[in-house]
Amino acid sequence: MTTTLRPSGSSTGPTDADAVLAGVDIGGTTTQVVLCSTGLDVLDRVELPTPAAEGGRAMIGTVLDGLGRLLARTPAPLAGVGVGAAGVVDARAGRILVASDSFAGWAGFAVTAALEESLGVPAFLDNDVNAFLRGEVARGAAAGERYVLGMTLGTGVGGALWMDGALVDGPHGAAGEIGHIPGFGDLPCSCGGRGHLETLAAGRSLAARYAERTGRNADAKGVAMAAGQGDADALAVFSAAGAGIARALLITAGLVDVTTAVIGGGVSRAWSLLEPAVKAALEDEPPVSGRPIRLVPALLGSDAVAVGAAARARTELASAPA
Amino acid sequence: MTTTLRPSGSSTGPTDADAVLAGVDIGGTTTQVVLCSTGLDVLDRVELPTPAAEGGRAMIGTVLDGLGRLLARTPAPLAGVGVGAAGVVDARAGRILVASDSFAGWAGFAVTAALEESLGVPAFLDNDVNAFLRGEVARGAAAGERYVLGMTLGTGVGGALWMDGALVDGPHGAAGEIGHIPGFGDLPCSCGGRGHLETLAAGRSLAARYAERTGRNADAKGVAMAAGQGDADALAVFSAAGAGIARALLITAGLVDVTTAVIGGGVSRAWSLLEPAVKAALEDEPPVSGRPIRLVPALLGSDAVAVGAAARARTELASAPA
Repeated sequence: MTTTLRPSGSSTGPTDADAVLAGVDIGGTTTQVVLCSTGLDVLDRVELPTPAAEGGRAMIGTVLDGLGRLLARTPAPLAGVGVGAAGVVDARAGRILVASDSFAGWAGFAVTAALEESLGVPAFLDNDVNAFLRGEVARGAAAGERYVLGMTLGTGVGGALWMDGALVDGPHGAAGEIGHIPGFGDLPCSCGGRGHLETLAAGRSLAARYAERTGRNADAKGVAMAAGQGDADALAVFSAAGAGIARALLITAGLVDVTTAVIGGGVSRAWSLLEPAVKAALEDEPPVSGRPIRLVPALLGSDAVAVGAAARARTELASAPA
Repeated sequence: MTTTLRPSGSSTGPTDADAVLAGVDIGGTTTQVVLCSTGLDVLDRVELPTPAAEGGRAMIGTVLDGLGRLLARTPAPLAGVGVGAAGVVDARAGRILVASDSFAGWAGFAVTAALEESLGVPAFLDNDVNAFLRGEVARGAAAGERYVLGMTLGTGVGGALWMDGALVDGPHGAAGEIGHIPGFGDLPCSCGGRGHLETLAAGRSLAARYAERTGRNADAKGVAMAAGQGDADALAVFSAAGAGIARALLITAGLVDVTTAVIGGGVSRAWSLLEPAVKAALEDEPPVSGRPIRLVPALLGSDAVAVGAAARARTELASAPA
C-alpha cells in the first residue's frame, strides 16, 4: 500500500516559505501526521491506527497514506519529513535500533530510507521523547529556551535534554534518560534496575503503588480520580511521584544546570495532583546553583512529537548545503 | 609585591611553538605555578604558601612571584596564563564570585585583569575542578576523550563535565556539581542539602561516618589506615563511599551518556579501598545505555589543576583572532 506522492521538485529549497514540512508521530496505537508551515504552525493533521503487528513496511504505508491525504488538501510543496518513533533509534542513520515487543519487524527498519524513496524529499528520524522536547522548545512551553529537561510521564518515564540550544544525544544516543537513573528509592523498575523515577511516576507505577497500599486495582486515571475525591492512599501515591519528579529536576539542574523542565505524557494531565509535592520538595531544597528551576506542563499536547519531528526536519534542511 | 615581568612581545603568537604557557592552581594552603610547553608538557614548577588571609592582591602577588621565578629560568616567551581557583568563578569575566571563608578579600576579585595588567599577556580563570578535568582530558587519564565526568574527592566532593569535547559550564556556571545532587541517602550535607554524594565520599565525611559508627575520631587518612588493617567499620565507610560513587556514575551516564569518569582528589589515593565497592555496584546495575563506564583514577596528581588551567589558556589563544 505504498502511495506514490508527487515529489517536491527542484524549485523547493529548504527556505522556501511556501513549502510545508511534515511531522509524524508513530505510537504504539496511533500514527499522527501533521503538516506544518516553515514557521511550524500546524496547518492540517490526520490520525490513523498504527499497524504495529504488521511490520515496518505496513507502518510506513500508514504514514504515506496519512501524508497523501494531507498533501491532497494543500497546494504547497513538501520540503521534508520528520518522524518521531518510540524505542531506541539511530537518529543519524534514520533507523530503528530497539523496539518494544508490541512492534513487529520494526527493530532494524530503515525508516528514513523508506520514506525518502517514496516521497523524494529528505526524511529524518528521532526518538519520540527527543521529538517531544524539540517540539516544546520550538513552539511550546519552553519556546526559545536553551537549557531544558523534557520529561514524559506515560506508561513509562521518558527524558530528553536540550543544552546550549541543541538536543543532547550522547556518544551512545543514550542521553536524557531521567526515568532510568538510580536515587529514587529501591523499587524494582521495568528496565531491570532499581530505584528509578519510573517506579514512582509512570502511569503503571501509580497503579502498582496504589494497589500495594490498598489491595485495590485501578489504572492511573482511576488513582487520579480517587485522589481528586480525597482518597489518602491515592494522594500519597501522587505525592511520592511529585517528590520523585522534584528530585529528578534537582539532579538535572545540579549536573547540567538546566533552567527549565517541561513535563508531558498522559500522567502530566493530573498536574494539579503532582504539582504541590513537586513545589514543596523544591522549596525544601533549592538547586545547588541557588537558581530556581522553571517547571512547566507541556503546551503542544498530542501534537508535540509530530511538531518536534517537523522541527528536526526544518533544522536539518536549514543547515544542509544549498 | 607585584613583580614586573617581561611581556611576551608582539612576536609571540598563540601558536608560537617556542612560547610557554603558565598554569596556576590557587588552593587554600598552597599555590602551584607550572610552565608548560604548547604541547602541555610541564617544563618547570614551583609551590608557594597561599596568603589566603591577606586578600586578592597578596594572592596574585604570590602567583606573580612564583611565575617570575620560573620565567627567570627559561628563555621562552610567555604566551598566556591560566588560573584554577577554588570556589564559584565567572570563567568569562575572569572573576571570583563566591569563595570559602578561609579566603579573605577574594570574592569579587578580578583575577585575570590583575594578571593581564602585570604580565601583558592574556589570562584566563576557571573553577579548580573544571581545570582539573581540563588537565586530565588534555594530558591525563582521559586524554583525547569527548564525554567525561571529572570528580574530585577532597575535603568536599567536586565535579565537572566534559561533553562533545568541551567543558560544560551551564547558563549559571553551575554544571557538573555531582557532589551536591540528591539521591544518596538522607544525611545532612555541608551545603545545607541532604543525601548528597559529599556526605559519603568526601574526606571529612569518611571521618564523620567512621566517628558515628565507632565513637573514635580519625581523619580520612586514619580511616583508610584502619581499613587497610581490616577494621570492619572503616571498611564499611569506604564501601558506602564506593557505592555512592557508582551511583553518581550511573546517574551521569544515564543523563548525559558519558563514557568515562576520572576520579581525583586526596581521597582517591585510597583507590584500592573504594574500587571494589564501585565495581560491585556497577556490575549489579549497568548504565541504562548498556555500555560500561570506564572509571579511571586521575593521572596528573597535584599538577592536574595547573596543567588544566594552562590547557584552557591554550584553547582560548588558539581560538582567538590572530
